[in-house]
Amino acid sequence: LDALFRDPEMVAIFSPDATVRRMLKFEAALARAEARAGVIPVTAATAIVTACETVTFDAGELFRDAVSSGTPVIPLVRLITEHAANDATAFVHMGTTSQDTIDTAIVLLMRDGINLLVASLGKISIEAARLARDHRHTLMAGRTLLQQAVPITFGLKAARWLHTTIHLNQKLITLRTETLAIQFGGAAGTLAALGAKGPEVATLLAEELDLPEPLLPWHAERERIAEVATTMGIVAGSMAKIAADLTLLQQSEIAEISPGSDSSRGGSSAIPQKRNPVDATLTTAAARLAIGDVTAILNSMAHAHERAPGEWQAEWEAIANLFSHTASAVNHVQTAIKNLVVNDSNMRTNLNSSGGIVMAESISTALAEKIGRQDAFRLTQEIVQTAVSEGIGFRDAFESNPRASLLLTTSEINRAFNPAAYLGSTDVFIDRVLANFDALKDQ
Amino acid sequence: LDALFRDPEMVAIFSPDATVRRMLKFEAALARAEARAGVIPVTAATAIVTACETVTFDAGELFRDAVSSGTPVIPLVRLITEHAANDATAFVHMGTTSQDTIDTAIVLLMRDGINLLVASLGKISIEAARLARDHRHTLMAGRTLLQQAVPITFGLKAARWLHTTIHLNQKLITLRTETLAIQFGGAAGTLAALGAKGPEVATLLAEELDLPEPLLPWHAERERIAEVATTMGIVAGSMAKIAADLTLLQQSEIAEISPGSDSSRGGSSAIPQKRNPVDATLTTAAARLAIGDVTAILNSMAHAHERAPGEWQAEWEAIANLFSHTASAVNHVQTAIKNLVVNDSNMRTNLNSSGGIVMAESISTALAEKIGRQDAFRLTQEIVQTAVSEGIGFRDAFESNPRASLLLTTSEINRAFNPAAYLGSTDVFIDRVLANFDALKDQ
Amino acid sequence: LDALFRDPEMVAIFSPDATVRRMLKFEAALARAEARAGVIPVTAATAIVTACETVTFDAGELFRDAVSSGTPVIPLVRLITEHAANDATAFVHMGTTSQDTIDTAIVLLMRDGINLLVASLGKISIEAARLARDHRHTLMAGRTLLQQAVPITFGLKAARWLHTTIHLNQKLITLRTETLAIQFGGAAGTLAALGAKGPEVATLLAEELDLPEPLLPWHAERERIAEVATTMGIVAGSMAKIAADLTLLQQSEIAEISPGSDSSRGGSSAIPQKRNPVDATLTTAAARLAIGDVTAILNSMAHAHERAPGEWQAEWEAIANLFSHTASAVNHVQTAIKNLVVNDSNMRTNLNSSGGIVMAESISTALAEKIGRQDAFRLTQEIVQTAVSEGIGFRDAFESNPRASLLLTTSEINRAFNPAAYLGSTDVFIDRVLANFDALKDQ
Amino acid sequence: LDALFRDPEMVAIFSPDATVRRMLKFEAALARAEARAGVIPVTAATAIVTACETVTFDAGELFRDAVSSGTPVIPLVRLITEHAANDATAFVHMGTTSQDTIDTAIVLLMRDGINLLVASLGKISIEAARLARDHRHTLMAGRTLLQQAVPITFGLKAARWLHTTIHLNQKLITLRTETLAIQFGGAAGTLAALGAKGPEVATLLAEELDLPEPLLPWHAERERIAEVATTMGIVAGSMAKIAADLTLLQQSEIAEISPGSDSSRGGSSAIPQKRNPVDATLTTAAARLAIGDVTAILNSMAHAHERAPGEWQAEWEAIANLFSHTASAVNHVQTAIKNLVVNDSNMRTNLNSSGGIVMAESISTALAEKIGRQDAFRLTQEIVQTAVSEGIGFRDAFESNPRASLLLTTSEINRAFNPAAYLGSTDVFIDRVLANFDALKDQ
Repeated sequence: LDALFRDPEMVAIFSPDATVRRMLKFEAALARAEARAGVIPVTAATAIVTACETVTFDAGELFRDAVSSGTPVIPLVRLITEHAANDATAFVHMGTTSQDTIDTAIVLLMRDGINLLVASLGKISIEAARLARDHRHTLMAGRTLLQQAVPITFGLKAARWLHTTIHLNQKLITLRTETLAIQFGGAAGTLAALGAKGPEVATLLAEELDLPEPLLPWHAERERIAEVATTMGIVAGSMAKIAADLTLLQQSEIAEISPGSDSSRGGSSAIPQKRNPVDATLTTAAARLAIGDVTAILNSMAHAHERAPGEWQAEWEAIANLFSHTASAVNHVQTAIKNLVVNDSNMRTNLNSSGGIVMAESISTALAEKIGRQDAFRLTQEIVQTAVSEGIGFRDAFESNPRASLLLTTSEINRAFNPAAYLGSTDVFIDRVLANFDALKDQ
Repeated sequence: LDALFRDPEMVAIFSPDATVRRMLKFEAALARAEARAGVIPVTAATAIVTACETVTFDAGELFRDAVSSGTPVIPLVRLITEHAANDATAFVHMGTTSQDTIDTAIVLLMRDGINLLVASLGKISIEAARLARDHRHTLMAGRTLLQQAVPITFGLKAARWLHTTIHLNQKLITLRTETLAIQFGGAAGTLAALGAKGPEVATLLAEELDLPEPLLPWHAERERIAEVATTMGIVAGSMAKIAADLTLLQQSEIAEISPGSDSSRGGSSAIPQKRNPVDATLTTAAARLAIGDVTAILNSMAHAHERAPGEWQAEWEAIANLFSHTASAVNHVQTAIKNLVVNDSNMRTNLNSSGGIVMAESISTALAEKIGRQDAFRLTQEIVQTAVSEGIGFRDAFESNPRASLLLTTSEINRAFNPAAYLGSTDVFIDRVLANFDALKDQ
Repeated sequence: LDALFRDPEMVAIFSPDATVRRMLKFEAALARAEARAGVIPVTAATAIVTACETVTFDAGELFRDAVSSGTPVIPLVRLITEHAANDATAFVHMGTTSQDTIDTAIVLLMRDGINLLVASLGKISIEAARLARDHRHTLMAGRTLLQQAVPITFGLKAARWLHTTIHLNQKLITLRTETLAIQFGGAAGTLAALGAKGPEVATLLAEELDLPEPLLPWHAERERIAEVATTMGIVAGSMAKIAADLTLLQQSEIAEISPGSDSSRGGSSAIPQKRNPVDATLTTAAARLAIGDVTAILNSMAHAHERAPGEWQAEWEAIANLFSHTASAVNHVQTAIKNLVVNDSNMRTNLNSSGGIVMAESISTALAEKIGRQDAFRLTQEIVQTAVSEGIGFRDAFESNPRASLLLTTSEINRAFNPAAYLGSTDVFIDRVLANFDALKDQ
Repeated sequence: LDALFRDPEMVAIFSPDATVRRMLKFEAALARAEARAGVIPVTAATAIVTACETVTFDAGELFRDAVSSGTPVIPLVRLITEHAANDATAFVHMGTTSQDTIDTAIVLLMRDGINLLVASLGKISIEAARLARDHRHTLMAGRTLLQQAVPITFGLKAARWLHTTIHLNQKLITLRTETLAIQFGGAAGTLAALGAKGPEVATLLAEELDLPEPLLPWHAERERIAEVATTMGIVAGSMAKIAADLTLLQQSEIAEISPGSDSSRGGSSAIPQKRNPVDATLTTAAARLAIGDVTAILNSMAHAHERAPGEWQAEWEAIANLFSHTASAVNHVQTAIKNLVVNDSNMRTNLNSSGGIVMAESISTALAEKIGRQDAFRLTQEIVQTAVSEGIGFRDAFESNPRASLLLTTSEINRAFNPAAYLGSTDVFIDRVLANFDALKDQ
């Protein structure tokens, strides 16, 4: 089922194979750092690096071996040691511990994962910017609690999606530069096995891996992991919001968007006419799964003492799932938005569907200039009531209302019933977000 | 990482391959039912059944194909149709819809999954019953809020584990017989494509699959799924409780149990002496992951109209994950309990570690018969205070207390300080649970 | 904000005051049971019972006092003791512990809470049964993934709501009779302070409180609590499903239901014409809150040893919140359904909105009898395509299709385009659920 | 129960009364901004501001009134209008909508809430810094998976707590300055009722409330809320980590800390000697509750269109609960750490409890210099095995090992068995965190 709710590229980044490769990368970088610090011989480091780069392994077998110790690092170190030249074997995994290897490997995976997400969200931004520009004037109903409220434009909706993706990307970039850092503390966070050389090795290790060095090891303090995890949850939740909009706009009776020209998408096994909102559907599903993973991680933050019996290990799978599900949500939104066809005539029809009732606030505002806001609000409600109870259009009801119709001139009435004239700051808002997008692109 | 937090047998039950096989089983059973009801020709049914039983498929490819429609049933029906004899092709998937196929397939998978769990929990029951019997008299400290309270026996603790597993198995069996049922409603729950034959086909389909027939289709009412999911969460949570006990008992300074004779288990990559509580650790991790999955399912219960765009699809992966994680938790507990070595002398040492202070309630109870409960409680607290502040044993403090020591005879004192004499209903409780276990075994 | 998302009656059941009253009820029942078992003097029991029944207290103060010990039972026992006649003071809270008092009090509260929920769900059942009966033939579109699929009736939708509430009530009743039980174990689950009298007192205590007696104390095994909690989550989730339907049906452009005649409900602070789906909205909100509480409880099941430092205490508030939120969801659904006005003409209009395209499966089924199912499916898709691309009605497209129009007679065509003739087992399903409802009512 | 799991100061900040006050603050600020922009008369603004500042209200009643419309803003606006001078009534709540009022009010509450949390976490920092300094050299066992690993110092553990609180506070401050912003969009995010004046009013409103102005309204894009909510969850989870440490260190058999001199804290209703870890217990409970609230918010991010029917409203209570629970967790940790008594002799005793076995890595490291790391690891394991199987101390086993004892000189042996000589970078790490703390204090 992976194909449906997990992004294949992200699954590849967090695959067992890739995870082992990142652990090997840590061990190699550590050997290099220790050689540079004079802790181990340069020749040993070279041999270990070679072993880490050339060793072949079966990741599945390695994780099955891990069941007996609870950590894949033990069979992995054995593997490197078997593979390394003789005089290097004594220096493999020197001064470190399973958690250093695994946490730092996961940090490296998360960095790759964040980079992939940033790129994917960037693609949504481009599409959303296009829609915001192209549909700046495409009128549609604004809907609150799924009731028509006042007119907006589809471009404004797209501008809001754009703003979300820009915002999320800025968060992700901050996360990548400020939250990700090496974990390196040895058996219980003191680097005791390295004597006085600990801090120097740590600095060099961070340099080798191009990651920041934290003030002290964070093995049992999981804020970093939780920050990444909850940010994924927020990305997924934001995608679910866009998916909700898309699904609702594509309802048979609303039909303001359609899923695009690729007619093979969205078919049904029973119903000939169906065009299901497949990408929005898969987004919603992937987002729910992602948020379940976040729950697991937040509830696993209470790491006992210097390493938790269970709360730590739960992260390994939860983080991999979380990135894969979040990336799937992002990619399905991107596909949906890229292919989406805007049915502007349906938008216009729906906007007018209740005989102009969506212009009630506009009318009320126009009347307010003549008779005050409260009186205007009440008068408007009365007209709405008439329209509803007599089953006539709101404009008809307005025009047949003896008091109201006299308060406004024909041109005022025309203007008050013109959705395009009641868009307030829509253009300003679209411009601001597009300008922000352009400014960031130029950086 | 699957090996660590997912039970391989359960992973096999919910594998993409097995999932497709269950969907094929549904389609075959449906063909048979429709033939029996006279809806399709018998020869067509035979051909479809043969096709379903002999068709070869690549489940991965099938699910990748499913991305464009959002459902694996479309490519699957195409596959069956291509594979079936010519005159049968018109009758494949007749009168039904994707959701019928998938929901019923998942019900079949869940039935297998529940059966596996019942067997695994049954194994824990056997081990827990053995421990309850063998350690009925093995004294240890009862601990509340991780403070020593009064003596209990290890047999009582095991009897509580036993009671939990018996209770969970009864819940699972009820679930299997009462909650699981076919889903069969056609395009939107009316079975319209079957005309008047819908109910008859439904009854025969249920018979073919040996599953109950519900009063009406449950496509958008997910109580059944949520009941199974939350029960999994409760099983996982109960395993986490046992794992917490095991982890705490195995602490270096407590050492009341050890993880057993298989010395390859629980080693460390850095620390020569480490014997980690590997199985309890993996239980805790798997349980956290399982409960995250439950969250996803409960938050996906609001299925819109006749089929949800996203909330339904999220279940597919969440259910598979949930069963695999829960089974992993169960199996790790079983391994842990089976191999566990009880260090009864350490239990006894810890019980006595604070110089008998764990017998304070016993002393207070003995004194109460002489001077009333409140006075006795206060006097005991005073003696406790003396013991703590003077750093002497509680019994020494008692004996040096001029008032208290005169209130009880030597034999009363000996009795009051004897943990084995202060076990209350321990034996009764153990007997009851063992009798319950034996009674259920005989059924 | 309580008024919006918490049911006031349920809030009253779980109020601090009522909670303290239930703890007093436990202490009184225990005194009676102990007197009957000869553990304490009858006069002492009488005095304690009187004290428990007449003592006045400030629940807020009592819980503030509880902060220093972590349990409200300590100040409560002090209060009873101060209030009881002199010779009874020694026997207050005899042989028991905080957890017995609190857990059993919560069980009593949950019993009341379940009774209230059963009554509230029963009211929904009555309304849903009425709707199922009255709208058995009210045609509307069945919608999957928010796309029109095939016709159903509003009565069928209501029958499904009815079935859900019946099912939930049966679950709640089972819970009340099978899961709720006294908790009585003393300091660490051995009832040691009662010597050999423990089991007898336990049996009498259960009798006094009219609750089952479990095989052994369940203090650290929280399956019971988790079963109640998850059932609440399932009730809440099921209400969210009904709320989703209501919200979607009430969309401005769909308008198949309206929230009823009470025009003060659902107004907007800005928009004169708004009639918001207030009750459905509050249901959805309350359900989300309820499910968050369930998460807290499932993640708190790993109770260490004989009493958990934190996981247990978290339940106290989570359970109270959960019942209040769930009851709010139930009551808002009840209000919504009771007041709901069915706009059957809109249902019919929407059903016909795409020029009969919702009858495509029906046409395909009719054609299949002439040219086989696959060919019919393809031909129907071709006609759908024509209708969509030429922007004409599906029936027009059908009639202009040279091949299709010749395959069916006029009366076959009329029948195939008649939604009322394409309802399959709708009536059977409605009848079954109504019969089930009537049968249960008669019990 | 509020007293136990909710911080009273935070409860006051988010009380119904305070919430209404913040809504009034928004309405007053809006009137001022609109007057400054020339949208409403200055006299009207003055009258509205006065009304908002002087109106008396019953918050409970107001929220009960809100049930019929789903929003407290309708009765609130009615109240202000009734209270305002006649010619101002027309200008109350002008150009805005419920969501603007409520979202901005919640932002103001969250700002206060964050300020309170920053102060509370700052107090933990001070205590943790004191402990880090005072116990820089206080030896104790580092424990991984609850097994003794290598020596650390209590100061290092406290330094890690310090680092966490510093880190969390920096996150909170960023949140306060970057994430919190006014919400102001009118009926559906266009500010249409203000014509061209929307942006100007928005800027002035932001100024009046001393909050940033976002690029565009964020009514249906809930990243901001989710960021605050998840940060609360991370704070709560971090507190749960400290609580876990405290609870484990205070176990009867470990007794490395005690809860301090206030002997009234932590008593038991049954057990005379009990000193329960009350504050750590309440922290754990409050954190679980907080994280449940986060779940509710993350699962409510998919806001439909321009305002969600349910997902939005769920936030109101969830946010208030979340802040109260999180603050409770923080305050209980602060109380616990402030009062905590360090039993350094018990730390030393436990460190030596297994006859020096915690020094195995140290010995192995010392031996490695003579015979290489692998051989040394194996030799050390052999000695550990001897110690365990013969039940003798590790040092005795070392000294009786014919090979090992010859490899090291007496002074090398003494050094290798000296925990204080095997602390690696402990001092460096403590210094770094203390320096970081001092640097931030000086800002």
